[in-house]
Amino acid sequence: MAQFEQWNGFKGKDWKNSVDVRSFIQDNYTVYEGDEAFLAEPTEATHKLWGKLQELQKEERAKGGVLDMETEVVSGLTAYGPGYISEELKDMEKVVGLQTDKPLKRAFMPYGGINMAEQACTTYGYQPSEKLHEIFTKYHKTHNQGVFDIYTPEMKKARHNKIITGLPDTYGRGRIVGDYRRVALYGIDFLIEKKQYDFERYARHGMKGTDFRLREEIADQIRALKEMKEMAAVYGFDISEPAKDAREAVQWLYFGYLAAIKTQNGAAMSVGRISTFLDVYIERDLENGTLTEAEAQELIDHLVMKFRMVKFARVPSYNELFSGDPVWATLEVAGLGQDGRSMVTKNDYRFLHTLENMGPSPEPNLTVLYSSRLPENFKKYAAYISVQTSSIQYENDDVMRPVWGDDYSICCCVSATQTGKEIQFFGARANLAKCLLYAINGGVDEKSKAQVGPAYRPITSEYLDFDEVMERYDDMMEWLSKLYVDTLNMIHYMHDKYYYEAAEMALIDTDVRRTFATGIAGFSHVIDSLSAIKYAKVKPIRDENGLAVDFEIEGDFPRYGNDDDRADDIAIWLLKTFMHKLNKCHTYRNSEPTTSILTITSNVVYGKATGSLPDGRKAGEPLAPGANPSYGAEKNGLLASLNSVAKLPYELALDGISNTQTISPDTIGHDDEERKNNLVQVMDGYFDQGAHHLNVNVFGTDKLIDAMEHPEKPEYANFTIRVSGYAVKFIDLTREQQLDVIARTCHDRM
Amino acid sequence: MAQFEQWNGFKGKDWKNSVDVRSFIQDNYTVYEGDEAFLAEPTEATHKLWGKLQELQKEERAKGGVLDMETEVVSGLTAYGPGYISEELKDMEKVVGLQTDKPLKRAFMPYGGINMAEQACTTYGYQPSEKLHEIFTKYHKTHNQGVFDIYTPEMKKARHNKIITGLPDTYGRGRIVGDYRRVALYGIDFLIEKKQYDFERYARHGMKGTDFRLREEIADQIRALKEMKEMAAVYGFDISEPAKDAREAVQWLYFGYLAAIKTQNGAAMSVGRISTFLDVYIERDLENGTLTEAEAQELIDHLVMKFRMVKFARVPSYNELFSGDPVWATLEVAGLGQDGRSMVTKNDYRFLHTLENMGPSPEPNLTVLYSSRLPENFKKYAAYISVQTSSIQYENDDVMRPVWGDDYSICCCVSATQTGKEIQFFGARANLAKCLLYAINGGVDEKSKAQVGPAYRPITSEYLDFDEVMERYDDMMEWLSKLYVDTLNMIHYMHDKYYYEAAEMALIDTDVRRTFATGIAGFSHVIDSLSAIKYAKVKPIRDENGLAVDFEIEGDFPRYGNDDDRADDIAIWLLKTFMHKLNKCHTYRNSEPTTSILTITSNVVYGKATGSLPDGRKAGEPLAPGANPSYGAEKNGLLASLNSVAKLPYELALDGISNTQTISPDTIGHDDEERKNNLVQVMDGYFDQGAHHLNVNVFGTDKLIDAMEHPEKPEYANFTIRVSGYAVKFIDLTREQQLDVIARTCHDRM
Repeated sequence: MAQFEQWNGFKGKDWKNSVDVRSFIQDNYTVYEGDEAFLAEPTEATHKLWGKLQELQKEERAKGGVLDMETEVVSGLTAYGPGYISEELKDMEKVVGLQTDKPLKRAFMPYGGINMAEQACTTYGYQPSEKLHEIFTKYHKTHNQGVFDIYTPEMKKARHNKIITGLPDTYGRGRIVGDYRRVALYGIDFLIEKKQYDFERYARHGMKGTDFRLREEIADQIRALKEMKEMAAVYGFDISEPAKDAREAVQWLYFGYLAAIKTQNGAAMSVGRISTFLDVYIERDLENGTLTEAEAQELIDHLVMKFRMVKFARVPSYNELFSGDPVWATLEVAGLGQDGRSMVTKNDYRFLHTLENMGPSPEPNLTVLYSSRLPENFKKYAAYISVQTSSIQYENDDVMRPVWGDDYSICCCVSATQTGKEIQFFGARANLAKCLLYAINGGVDEKSKAQVGPAYRPITSEYLDFDEVMERYDDMMEWLSKLYVDTLNMIHYMHDKYYYEAAEMALIDTDVRRTFATGIAGFSHVIDSLSAIKYAKVKPIRDENGLAVDFEIEGDFPRYGNDDDRADDIAIWLLKTFMHKLNKCHTYRNSEPTTSILTITSNVVYGKATGSLPDGRKAGEPLAPGANPSYGAEKNGLLASLNSVAKLPYELALDGISNTQTISPDTIGHDDEERKNNLVQVMDGYFDQGAHHLNVNVFGTDKLIDAMEHPEKPEYANFTIRVSGYAVKFIDLTREQQLDVIARTCHDRM
Repeated sequence: MAQFEQWNGFKGKDWKNSVDVRSFIQDNYTVYEGDEAFLAEPTEATHKLWGKLQELQKEERAKGGVLDMETEVVSGLTAYGPGYISEELKDMEKVVGLQTDKPLKRAFMPYGGINMAEQACTTYGYQPSEKLHEIFTKYHKTHNQGVFDIYTPEMKKARHNKIITGLPDTYGRGRIVGDYRRVALYGIDFLIEKKQYDFERYARHGMKGTDFRLREEIADQIRALKEMKEMAAVYGFDISEPAKDAREAVQWLYFGYLAAIKTQNGAAMSVGRISTFLDVYIERDLENGTLTEAEAQELIDHLVMKFRMVKFARVPSYNELFSGDPVWATLEVAGLGQDGRSMVTKNDYRFLHTLENMGPSPEPNLTVLYSSRLPENFKKYAAYISVQTSSIQYENDDVMRPVWGDDYSICCCVSATQTGKEIQFFGARANLAKCLLYAINGGVDEKSKAQVGPAYRPITSEYLDFDEVMERYDDMMEWLSKLYVDTLNMIHYMHDKYYYEAAEMALIDTDVRRTFATGIAGFSHVIDSLSAIKYAKVKPIRDENGLAVDFEIEGDFPRYGNDDDRADDIAIWLLKTFMHKLNKCHTYRNSEPTTSILTITSNVVYGKATGSLPDGRKAGEPLAPGANPSYGAEKNGLLASLNSVAKLPYELALDGISNTQTISPDTIGHDDEERKNNLVQVMDGYFDQGAHHLNVNVFGTDKLIDAMEHPEKPEYANFTIRVSGYAVKFIDLTREQQLDVIARTCHDRM
């Protein structure tokens, strides 16, 4: 059993025998059931640093979204000397460490693909390095090159026609959350020792290629751990041993996260579930009298400031998919323990309080792990912050805890993984709405007119027959699910080969569990289309080649989002059918297939590529985001809409069911007190039904329109809204995306 | 069916339907049964170029073995502009193309291991490039780094103590023979088309990691084929289409080989079975009157000159293993077809004749595929050249043909692979003599005193008991075979990952067969030791720790090499037992395990690392090379020795059974005529018994001693001898190795 003096005062021993942060937390955390009265205002240092950072952000926006870019240095753990928000204020920074040598300067990360890395530079007027170009074209193959080397023509066609879309073949796959807490609790040397033990343990009898891959990965992880020590040493810290107090704990943990964002530029670079963990250190220091509440808040404010600074160099096509420059530095608060105790600590308040101390912000992607059994005080405070900032999302701890335990992190927008024990192979999405059109048109794409899917028999009848459509759709989904999984398998094979996440995986158990996270786009439109075909009469309008390019609907039909089982049953059927088809496929590294209904902002791009649908949605219009009902479909108010979504069984979509709702302030209450109480009530009801997720926006359409027309107004500088799965500054969206947000249902009745 | 005007006059069609060089040869070659009278003398161009090359070789030797080295450019297909033996004579070169930009300048090849590549430079006083150091340490992992990342401590220990030895983990694995003839017969475009077809063909249902690896390999092969065209274009040739005449055929084929030696520095870089193939082109030109015999010989002389120039940058430890700077540019002549026809053509004479036109030479490693049924004229001419030059080896086509067909190439010293259809995973050797000592000493190494093998019970009796030794030996061989195969599996996995032979594999069928070529060192000593234990009395001399460090033998015992079944049966038992143990192991990529008794010159290094043995061999003395009987063991003359070796069943050692014999000229005959006739008789007898291989040296010990003492004498400049598996210039050996050669049995009676 290990023993460090840095652990004095901590209880329990399971976590001393092996790497087990969860046990440490359970043995040591202090439940807080009081209200927010204890919270402290920002310190002078926080004010100054945040002021400086806001200046930099303003400057960044003025320069077209990018303040500075690296072109000569490949990002890595030891690529840079120390960097600070401001040289003059650096002594005020309680948490140090930048991705590069300067704040908001974007690193050069070519391992995912040199062309993308270079395109990111040239897009913003930077000239990429010739030397690095030579290295990553001549000597070191990149992930992107590896994938395109082996794609089949069918895959390329499906990708090009966007029936499979948003694939992580041009960027890091992300969705891997290192257990950054381990750095603080154990120090790097202990972690190296444990990995070395694993290296020996995995010298199995009759080793094969898969064993060799794992051994090499462990060797690379150990190398990364050693480099993390070097990286910290540059800032004057020796992280060989455990952190001795709260400040070190925050700093050590951040170094772990910094290692991740210096080496990977995944679509999601989550921080994970760190709040309760850090509270243990803060409580010890508060008790010892070595820390004040103001200092504690300052530590959390400065840590959050760092999370607000995370940036990656992106290409325009990426920005189209994921608008507003998100990084998904997702960070959880609250939740319950397996033993039924609330895991809410004072620190959960402190994290939410950063939205007051430093104003609203899209990052970190603050997530409340919700249960109606959370302390009332906390639920109300969270709801209050939602009403004020629209910067929080809620996820149902009561449905996730039975699956993932009480130490899971959200690894992307809404997807849970057990912290330090599990990763995801991120898989973007299959456009099931387009798939329905392929079923009708015999595999011919309605936009490009190319034969993309298999040349099954098209539907030629004057009116669509429900049974015939269902039979054709089943066949086409079968084809799509297979092709989709095959494609993802290739991507993840090549990612492991050319862009392995050694630094993140070094902070994760060696015998990691892997899920294979697929996704669905166009969900609501398929439901409503099938409902229209079943309950109304749908007549395809065919072009000169016989392709159905539009539909005339005669009569009315039930729509998803109105708490009507006729439509909602189709939703469940669709999810179940697709998930079962995925389960039939072999998945890379024996990962477990899951799916999500979660399109993020890519619903706009996906919609552009999708023809008119039998539900009345016209070609090119955005798809509804995530699991949201279609625009204009919700006729019965917020609660009916929530009820429809809540019917989707979480166990069929373990990767998440994203629901984004906007409520006008007047609908939810006459004043903030009433609003927060009502919001708690709405959420208790929604989540008690087993719903998974809710993005809560509280504002009216008028405010959105004004912000779109007058982005220069100071009140809109940090105006943050929740979109499908994350938050963005509204003024950072393109006009097209702003119009889409404005078009979405803003509930003005409950 | 493809059709090219370049094929006019060629018969058959199977080879037009798919890549099938063997069919082309069988359909078109012209048997030659005449004698050597038709051969032509060297042309003026040959004289001048060879003279120039000899000057360069002299200069190279004067500079310590290396004339020039590259340090700034990584070797690759398109890394250099054109290079010639001599700028002034370049119009005389009928076959062009150098590995680098200058003759005998060694290329920089870091993919196998940057440390080795750099050490090769510094050994000869060259300063390696800092830029390339950075690239191959920071950005691109090398094969060597990959292997050492995943080795187990047990493997490192076994390797360090040299019970497993000579492993290809610090150099290219070699032993892959591209079918270079394909470039001439089909041209590159046709080959690309076929590989593209394979790429599509291998888009299998439910593809997995192994499929992805293969697809990426095919993509890399296609890239290499395209680069071969660029490489040839630098010299002014367009090799997109088939060669139109003999000169182009020779040149195209050489470009294929040049692609291999520009990208790989394997221990063996064989040329393959090209003689009969090229004869078809020469015959067509001779018949058309577009080529004379003198021009034909000139083409072959110039091609061979190129093979004599192949060089790699090597490190001292490599040179210790494989003395005399060999590259195993192995090249075959003769053999029979499956239909019983002799495959001897005039071209086989021309290749042997190069040893007259340009004197003896170790490279190319000329190999006669022998059968007593070869035309008498040819057998005699080959024997004559052996007597004159000691530069030829013989291998038994009658035992190889049933296994490998009639189009196999020798891929290393003696190992057969079907040309273009098969590769080897080269595996160096296990030291079975040391393993016997481990069996006696309970896994403790007799030199380092470390526990290397498993801590089995040691033998503690005063005299060694045969049954007890056999039981212990069996256990220890079981451990060794498993560890050996596990180690090789890792090496080949990493080689595929970091140093894949794209250019060579581009000229090999995609559904390639793979053998897993292990090897045995210390063969004769184990036999004689076990025989001594069985038939005499052997008393271990133990040191203070109880380790047997020497042995006293009381009484006489039969020794391997005297046609005595008591010893020779042990030889067969040993081979069979080890082979069967190898067969029990999982081998990488489902390769088929084979073994060889073939130590090359590494017998000296292996011997240094091996303690005294129960057969009387003292610690540190060289082991007998290959399958040769031990020094001094042969008491009954050449034929008895050959008979012993001939008893080893080839099917148990499909990777080869190497036998090197030296006969004094007077023993074999009174004049050259008698000598050649007698040598033919000896070989007919030896090979008709089913023996596999024979290196024939015809010289006396006196000549060796004189050459060792007076290397400066002009007659020794090209004095070539056959050692185990290849030929070397005697004066290029270290004194230690020269002494070893001198110590070997020189038969002075038949």
